[in-house]
Amino acid sequence: MNYYSSSIAQLIEQFTKLPGIGRKTAQRLAFHVISMPNQDAHSLADAIVTAKESVKYCKVCTNLTDQDTCNICSDKRRDPLTICVVEDPRDVVAMERTKEFKGYYHVLHGAISPLEGVGPEDIKIKELLSRLTNQPVDEIIIATNPNIEGEATAMYLSKLLKPMGIKVSRIAHGIPVGGDLEYADEVTLTKALEGRREI
Amino acid sequence: MNYYSSSIAQLIEQFTKLPGIGRKTAQRLAFHVISMPNQDAHSLADAIVTAKESVKYCKVCTNLTDQDTCNICSDKRRDPLTICVVEDPRDVVAMERTKEFKGYYHVLHGAISPLEGVGPEDIKIKELLSRLTNQPVDEIIIATNPNIEGEATAMYLSKLLKPMGIKVSRIAHGIPVGGDLEYADEVTLTKALEGRREI
Repeated sequence: MNYYSSSIAQLIEQFTKLPGIGRKTAQRLAFHVISMPNQDAHSLADAIVTAKESVKYCKVCTNLTDQDTCNICSDKRRDPLTICVVEDPRDVVAMERTKEFKGYYHVLHGAISPLEGVGPEDIKIKELLSRLTNQPVDEIIIATNPNIEGEATAMYLSKLLKPMGIKVSRIAHGIPVGGDLEYADEVTLTKALEGRREI
Repeated sequence: MNYYSSSIAQLIEQFTKLPGIGRKTAQRLAFHVISMPNQDAHSLADAIVTAKESVKYCKVCTNLTDQDTCNICSDKRRDPLTICVVEDPRDVVAMERTKEFKGYYHVLHGAISPLEGVGPEDIKIKELLSRLTNQPVDEIIIATNPNIEGEATAMYLSKLLKPMGIKVSRIAHGIPVGGDLEYADEVTLTKALEGRREI
């Protein structure tokens, strides 16, 4: 691929490293960058460096933030007695979009996965425990993903937290709203049956 | 969308401006950048700025390059009597991949399109003409895209160049009509080169 001048080749190479960006897309992005106004290209480069350098973990919930304490943990109007545990900062955003949950969050930054060599000490569980020693909590809602790793993490946390006298709950599994019963897999349907509630 | 910290939101915003990148992909890219090693994030940002700042037009063929004269125009082993005219720098790369064409290129940076207000003076036609006054050429192969704009450009160039006693040819419609030169496979492009006809 020495058909491109070195700086274009370099840019294509860098774009290719991003997730979901193949060579064709990387080429298209690179040529787009070259045809951009100078200022826009600098804004993009600056945003990358700024985000990389200023983003750190919130000292309370370990969500990503550029302050010491994230916007949600700084919001004193929320319910301090409920903590929702999620795997990823994007999951916080997904939960917030429901506008239903009024408590605080804790971001694990992963899930327990023995196959990938991720143990309890590799995710932010000890940060959650030390947080609980400082602050009384009524309920912890575990909203890890409904897959093997997420379930393993939920089980682990439940066994750890229940002896501390905290109510531990798990978000419901079932058929997604707007989904089709016909296309639901057996495990989801079984979970939906198990979790049935009287109406 | 004030769920994200400002620097993450800013980065997502910047990624969304790129072609083919929607909000979900932009989020994924932004979180990938944040989880990258520091050095990689800087390499990406630097590549963007370097490509944007160092890339200019080759003074011979108007291809994009970071020298005064591009690699191809600097290569003295090529056939100086044949020039292949393409719309886009990516088309040069596509042609080079066939390893069939040994002449030089001329990059128009567009095609004549009255509907979009692109006239002959808006693309690099006068650069081609001034090049021809300095250097004798036997044949000009017009490899603009096989769509309305590309054909219009081919016709325009043909009418301009034939009176100068230059053989003007058009790559064959081996490329699917309505397709894009950039995405053509090597075999199709080779066929198209072989089947070129005088116009």
